[in-house]
Amino acid sequence: MVNFIEGGVCAAQGFQAAGIHVGVKASSSPDKKDLALIVSDVECAAAAVYTSNVVKAAPVHVDMAHLADGKARAIIANSGNANTCAPGGEENAERMCAAAARAVGCRAEDVAVSSTGVIGQPIRIDVIEAGVPALYAALSHSSEGSDAAARAIMTTDTVKKEVALETTIGGKTVRMGGIAKGSGMIHPNMGTMLCFLTTDCAISPAMIKTALLETARVSFNRISVDGDTSTNDTCIVLANGMAGNQFIAAKGPDYDAFLEALQTLCVELARKMASDGEGAKHLITCHVQGAASEKSAEIIAKSVISSTLTKAAIFGTDANWGRVLCAMGYSGETFDPDKVDVHFASAAGDIAVCEQGRGLPFDEDLAKKILTEHDVEINITMGEGDGSCTCWGCDITYDYIQINGDYRT
Amino acid sequence: MVNFIEGGVCAAQGFQAAGIHVGVKASSSPDKKDLALIVSDVECAAAAVYTSNVVKAAPVHVDMAHLADGKARAIIANSGNANTCAPGGEENAERMCAAAARAVGCRAEDVAVSSTGVIGQPIRIDVIEAGVPALYAALSHSSEGSDAAARAIMTTDTVKKEVALETTIGGKTVRMGGIAKGSGMIHPNMGTMLCFLTTDCAISPAMIKTALLETARVSFNRISVDGDTSTNDTCIVLANGMAGNQFIAAKGPDYDAFLEALQTLCVELARKMASDGEGAKHLITCHVQGAASEKSAEIIAKSVISSTLTKAAIFGTDANWGRVLCAMGYSGETFDPDKVDVHFASAAGDIAVCEQGRGLPFDEDLAKKILTEHDVEINITMGEGDGSCTCWGCDITYDYIQINGDYRT
Repeated sequence: MVNFIEGGVCAAQGFQAAGIHVGVKASSSPDKKDLALIVSDVECAAAAVYTSNVVKAAPVHVDMAHLADGKARAIIANSGNANTCAPGGEENAERMCAAAARAVGCRAEDVAVSSTGVIGQPIRIDVIEAGVPALYAALSHSSEGSDAAARAIMTTDTVKKEVALETTIGGKTVRMGGIAKGSGMIHPNMGTMLCFLTTDCAISPAMIKTALLETARVSFNRISVDGDTSTNDTCIVLANGMAGNQFIAAKGPDYDAFLEALQTLCVELARKMASDGEGAKHLITCHVQGAASEKSAEIIAKSVISSTLTKAAIFGTDANWGRVLCAMGYSGETFDPDKVDVHFASAAGDIAVCEQGRGLPFDEDLAKKILTEHDVEINITMGEGDGSCTCWGCDITYDYIQINGDYRT
Repeated sequence: MVNFIEGGVCAAQGFQAAGIHVGVKASSSPDKKDLALIVSDVECAAAAVYTSNVVKAAPVHVDMAHLADGKARAIIANSGNANTCAPGGEENAERMCAAAARAVGCRAEDVAVSSTGVIGQPIRIDVIEAGVPALYAALSHSSEGSDAAARAIMTTDTVKKEVALETTIGGKTVRMGGIAKGSGMIHPNMGTMLCFLTTDCAISPAMIKTALLETARVSFNRISVDGDTSTNDTCIVLANGMAGNQFIAAKGPDYDAFLEALQTLCVELARKMASDGEGAKHLITCHVQGAASEKSAEIIAKSVISSTLTKAAIFGTDANWGRVLCAMGYSGETFDPDKVDVHFASAAGDIAVCEQGRGLPFDEDLAKKILTEHDVEINITMGEGDGSCTCWGCDITYDYIQINGDYRT
């Protein structure tokens, strides 16, 4: 039903995007893009989820106001400066929206804004305002537009994160796509990154919001890079209705199809973010089944992927399943450790390392081979009930320390 | 009132200790001590606090049973194997107690046992049992005994942790001392390490338990190395009454003096554990004042010292105070970010970096000099109330990753 396609945020009808270098990032290298714009040809229904951090970036406050009416036309975003705890933060965020609105020809209130980068330093609003006309001129309906925008929101990301898919809703082809930036400061919590999603589906703001909340719960909120929840995390969806499907204003089969597509899209983006965690060499997928409930399975799986010791063991391709059990044990959930089985798996094989809470003799060479793959799985079976959940994380490496030991310079 | 002295667990009257190599640790090097014994000349009142991890090591289960009557004579402990999730775990832990009891000449139920090291592998009970007579023969009332025991419980610790002090209670000189091992898998939670404390104070088991719980709350539970709570964490106090002070059976001035001394002792041991966190180059002390309550201050200070990003910034001597605010913000506490001031301080100076939630221009060279010291402070003032708290942590380094990437081999 759902097929992955090319095009990112430009895959859906009527969306353009661009990304250029204007000078927010210190480097003057032209490939250090730092300003992105996404524009719909027509007004969109819009919804967003934001960081749960008490310290919220200025753009988050502005978006909460601008998107309160469930409508938007465009998103402007910069990398290089988070515009958080910085003098004149909200005023500068508003000025970014106003500059975009002047170029697009819409109200400033119909523009959303995001920033990512260093905290506490004044954002160079002058170079942003000066750069917006060139940014607008660079807009493209083609996949190049999405590609440029995806690159312009990268900070320590090593690869751009871009996904698109198409599905059928009420007999019509509906497309949706997204770009995201992740890397550091990522931990399960509402909206844990910058993520911009576009779709040509015809759907009400209320139903998008419902679908987005349900989707964030099973995608972005189930990844962790380092346990830190950023001040700027934002996920925004724009839906312009150009697919011509019957307007979705309530739950039903069409909503279900939309939700399935949105979840597929966001799980893929979430996996890409975990996989490209700062310095990461491994994507770690933790499946828990047989837990007392889905919630319990989620808490346990999150505890495993968030455990610094487990992350270090995977970095060292060390099948140290004791750390997995330990992380389950301090998750806050109660369970019988004597009913826990643990397997490590990857494309190189599957190996049982713990049965009924006790270590099994196992082939260390095979275990090492399994854990040497980029994508590794920690598969846990409990004897508590039928709750299951999958969470994603990454290993912790020397590079993570290096990247974060001197981030500001 | 309280003076630090030498002697560790042998500082108090009537306590002997020893530590030798028997072969639990893989290395056959004679300085790889791996078995420790602490014995009181007479029966002691005893109390303990244990890990909150659902997955508890076999010795923890055994101690819970043996110390339920509030009495003990001796503690036997090994490093090199945690005896957790291992076949025959409780049977082997009981055999360790029985071996010690035979040598000491007491009931096995009056011996406590602890293990630390790798999880999930059978402990070499044969070499432990064979080694106990030599261990008993090595017992000494002198500080050499405590030194040997302190070394025998080390795993990845780089320095032994040993503290002792004397105070006056009811006109009598009372001594107390402790040895501890820490390093990895340390996070605020009940009893987060191995720690053995001895005192010649005359005090009831119930009052020791009360004092130990109150002390753990403000010492061991306020340190974090990596956020992982071990399956084996245990802190045991033995009090043999030989100081001849009036028996403490209720709260009052004598209990207060005992509590003050115990807290001083344990805060010092906790600081030593944080300072020697695996691979750590810095002890980070976070003072929070002006919080809504002590509890709120504690939650915020813990969040700061536990933040992987803040830890990486300190490793990089990068005055990235934005990460401090960010970690405060996701602590779960609500507060007004616009009332937060942040200073970095050390023996090299004190620098204000954030005032009323906004970045201050500051001397980067001085900041770097301050953060280059081993002991650094993050001092936070909030405008919420009069709650204050101090927590201790360490930076995260390349060495942490290396140590934990290949721990089992």
